[in-house]
Amino acid sequence: VPDVQAILAGDIRAGALLIRRIESGDPEGAGVLRRLYPHTGKAFVIGITGAPGAGKSTLVDGLIRSFRDMGHRVGVIAVDPSSPLTGGAILGDRLRMQRHAEDPGVFIRSMASGCHRGGLSRTAREASLVLDAMGYGIILVETVGAGQGESDIAGLAHATGIVVGPGSGDGIQAVKAGLLEVGDLFIVTHGDLPGSRETEEQLKAMLAMGEPRDPDWKPRVIRTSRDNPESVNTVASAFLEHRRALAGTGALTRRRAVMERVYLRNLVTDLVMERLCRTLEVSQALEKAVSAILEGRTDPLEAAMDLTGTILGNAHTNNPLDTKESIS
Amino acid sequence: VPDVQAILAGDIRAGALLIRRIESGDPEGAGVLRRLYPHTGKAFVIGITGAPGAGKSTLVDGLIRSFRDMGHRVGVIAVDPSSPLTGGAILGDRLRMQRHAEDPGVFIRSMASGCHRGGLSRTAREASLVLDAMGYGIILVETVGAGQGESDIAGLAHATGIVVGPGSGDGIQAVKAGLLEVGDLFIVTHGDLPGSRETEEQLKAMLAMGEPRDPDWKPRVIRTSRDNPESVNTVASAFLEHRRALAGTGALTRRRAVMERVYLRNLVTDLVMERLCRTLEVSQALEKAVSAILEGRTDPLEAAMDLTGTILGNAHTNNPLDTKESIS
Repeated sequence: VPDVQAILAGDIRAGALLIRRIESGDPEGAGVLRRLYPHTGKAFVIGITGAPGAGKSTLVDGLIRSFRDMGHRVGVIAVDPSSPLTGGAILGDRLRMQRHAEDPGVFIRSMASGCHRGGLSRTAREASLVLDAMGYGIILVETVGAGQGESDIAGLAHATGIVVGPGSGDGIQAVKAGLLEVGDLFIVTHGDLPGSRETEEQLKAMLAMGEPRDPDWKPRVIRTSRDNPESVNTVASAFLEHRRALAGTGALTRRRAVMERVYLRNLVTDLVMERLCRTLEVSQALEKAVSAILEGRTDPLEAAMDLTGTILGNAHTNNPLDTKESIS
Repeated sequence: VPDVQAILAGDIRAGALLIRRIESGDPEGAGVLRRLYPHTGKAFVIGITGAPGAGKSTLVDGLIRSFRDMGHRVGVIAVDPSSPLTGGAILGDRLRMQRHAEDPGVFIRSMASGCHRGGLSRTAREASLVLDAMGYGIILVETVGAGQGESDIAGLAHATGIVVGPGSGDGIQAVKAGLLEVGDLFIVTHGDLPGSRETEEQLKAMLAMGEPRDPDWKPRVIRTSRDNPESVNTVASAFLEHRRALAGTGALTRRRAVMERVYLRNLVTDLVMERLCRTLEVSQALEKAVSAILEGRTDPLEAAMDLTGTILGNAHTNNPLDTKESIS
């Protein structure tokens, strides 16, 4: 079992072990996480999202250096819900980040995909809580923007940076994906390429037309390039400025409430789905229903409604929390 | 309400209306589908999958022509679970297919994304049932292979074609994505490009090492090129040969059972999740729990377990199917 005290003391092996346990769905992991929970809430969590190929990993790599130079300890969670078919390219970018591996002030974890999206979002949040308990003051969560809109990204971070490539249509695509509304900072990458200035202007024009997410923060657009480390420092400073702007007004608490709501919903969904799968397996109800459909004795929708009744009924009977209700 | 008789007579407007209703989650759509269900089961459903950019849409375009030349009516469902961020490119390929729009023997539907994967897979299956009821004898379902393995693809089609690009690593990627086990036909595209012959040989070598999915069908590898329509005819004929090979042995019925099982599981999951969402909304339980977490009166896992109990309990009480059980 991962040791709570070791994790609170920042022990990297204990932290890595706990995150692995959480990823594999080990109930012991959940137990340890629960004891860590009261020690969390100190870190500032920054979400970095954008289309595949926009330059997220390069930016995260640069931000690690910037925040380290400012004296912060930095945790990184790279969430990769993408297909194994395209996994190769992403892995290459990730490897570049690993040059920070020897710096004890930096802790990087890639979260494996494979689960359903709710599960992945939940696990990423839990890994972020572990890094928070370990004392990393800045946590960067890198996700592929997948058009899931606010809930995915806002559920994982206090601040959100949207990475946009310099292509002419890239800004428009970000808008279509619903990212304009959730971004606190917009980072136009490859600032040395010709299209980047137009993309910057385009984003600024679109932002000027919309309502900001918080009245206390006007989203900013920053152009970066790999050859200009100062441009990445500007991004890091802007994130810290964002934190200061929101901390005074209660906006940060409102954002934490969103994070807790998304996390709680994911937890409940997972618990209910787990019950569903277990009930279907134990009862062999699914196999029996498939036979009935193949023999024309029922149709899929009727069978599904019957099964839903069975599942919720059985679950109810086995539910210890419910006995209290019956007694009272 | 879409008209059952019109759909059975092949009316395209009625069919399109029903599919739209199903996509939007309209309960009336489910009711009509249920009445159509006894009239389905005649179509041969072919799944076409592979990595983004492998050439799926071009192949589907060619297969429509081949099957039309053979006298079949062809329905096409293009499932696109990909991000709106990358949606632009895919749309271009789809547009090419639209040149069949004036042929009354061809019906093409793109399924919008946005739902969770289970929901999308369920809706695609339901659209396929509608096309089946409309009398399309061949149904092509194009999906992006997303590493979900057997359940996604096998749940949608009687036969599965895996599209592989001519790049040196493309065959290996297909294997990593778990596609080698589910493919009945492997189509190596861009047969005029230098790498295609190696990819073909590579796939053949890998297939020779594994067990075929059905003892009655040895998976085949076919190389196609856009300039050679005859190569696409070969693919179409091979799919029909596959159907003949499996029909005699009961293998086709086994595959239908897999499709029904996947569909039923998706239906049950959706029904349970719907109940979950409704309960959380009506009771405002989620908001209350978030407040308790923010005030430190509980932690997320305990709150989630309490909520799960409440949901399954409430659902039970409201479940009409359950009263019968209590009486008996």
